[in-house]
Amino acid sequence: MRQFVVLGHDAPTDADFSLDDLAGGAGRLDLLSRCVTAALLRSHGVREDVRVHLVLDDSVTISFRGEDVRRLNPDERSTAALIRQALQRRRDAVGHQPVETAPGVSLTRLGLEATLGRIADDGGILMLDAEGTPVSSVTPPADPVFVLSDHRDFTNAEDALLSGLVTGRISLGPVAIHADQAITVAHNWVDTDGFSR
Amino acid sequence: MRQFVVLGHDAPTDADFSLDDLAGGAGRLDLLSRCVTAALLRSHGVREDVRVHLVLDDSVTISFRGEDVRRLNPDERSTAALIRQALQRRRDAVGHQPVETAPGVSLTRLGLEATLGRIADDGGILMLDAEGTPVSSVTPPADPVFVLSDHRDFTNAEDALLSGLVTGRISLGPVAIHADQAITVAHNWVDTDGFSR
Repeated sequence: MRQFVVLGHDAPTDADFSLDDLAGGAGRLDLLSRCVTAALLRSHGVREDVRVHLVLDDSVTISFRGEDVRRLNPDERSTAALIRQALQRRRDAVGHQPVETAPGVSLTRLGLEATLGRIADDGGILMLDAEGTPVSSVTPPADPVFVLSDHRDFTNAEDALLSGLVTGRISLGPVAIHADQAITVAHNWVDTDGFSR
Repeated sequence: MRQFVVLGHDAPTDADFSLDDLAGGAGRLDLLSRCVTAALLRSHGVREDVRVHLVLDDSVTISFRGEDVRRLNPDERSTAALIRQALQRRRDAVGHQPVETAPGVSLTRLGLEATLGRIADDGGILMLDAEGTPVSSVTPPADPVFVLSDHRDFTNAEDALLSGLVTGRISLGPVAIHADQAITVAHNWVDTDGFSR
């Protein structure tokens, strides 16, 4: 399985935002929506063996499971609607238990550390970092967990936390790209491992 | 310079569509909008040395020039608004002359063959094709022109036309991905040529 953990620093943690202003009033929820679709969708289908976790404001995590998700369309607006629907159920998420808000979509009141703790045993954690090792000299692990940030850099606290957990810091290339673009490139890196050689 | 030519088969050629239904009533204009931003935007900036041409219904081409474009945001909705603004000026495009509809955005009443004819001298034309040569065994040309299709396959007529023009058919990997994702991976292919070796 591949997993992506995306840190949303400005994103809303309640459902009080408009689908017409995702890039503005909704704290760059356009970007987080694209991260979800970049992770889960391929042409004419879903990547069933993928999960993506949006960690919002280090307090709420919304997870999408490829094997269970339904009605996930490639446009930003419909994905943002699924996120809003999850946030509408935030009060129903008691303690650290997830609440299922749509098929394959769940919300948990957990921040970054606890979310990583839950999935760390699933595979090696790779941090996307411009200063990391170029992926051309790295072999993808069997079950990678990629951690990346939204349009902001990792905070110092996040960097310190991640330093103790990650198995490696990797760079996808010399040009800084958007988080959703990085997910697409990371997928291609793993997809093409062994391709044509 | 890098250029991307994207064939839109269902997209509107007039401005009579809603920004609230890009994936439905607007003929997958969500996808074409994402192709524009995937081609032109990197993190916190524009790829100035890139142009993208949307060929709609083989009759209208909307071009975005990275060096001149302004107010291009990463969300689908605002890019679709630029496309709609261009289509509103379609009647002003006389003959084969482009009309500038926003800074760095122009509309020309030309289909695929004429559009390729205008830019073919700029560099080698590479067709993205699942059956093509894996890019891992290809060196990117200096000024590549990538041709790709939207959510539909190339038609037989397009394939026949392109066969006479392209310098190569390349495959980005074993998993079929969306057109905008393919643009992101193609950029990374060229970006990383020589990176870390």
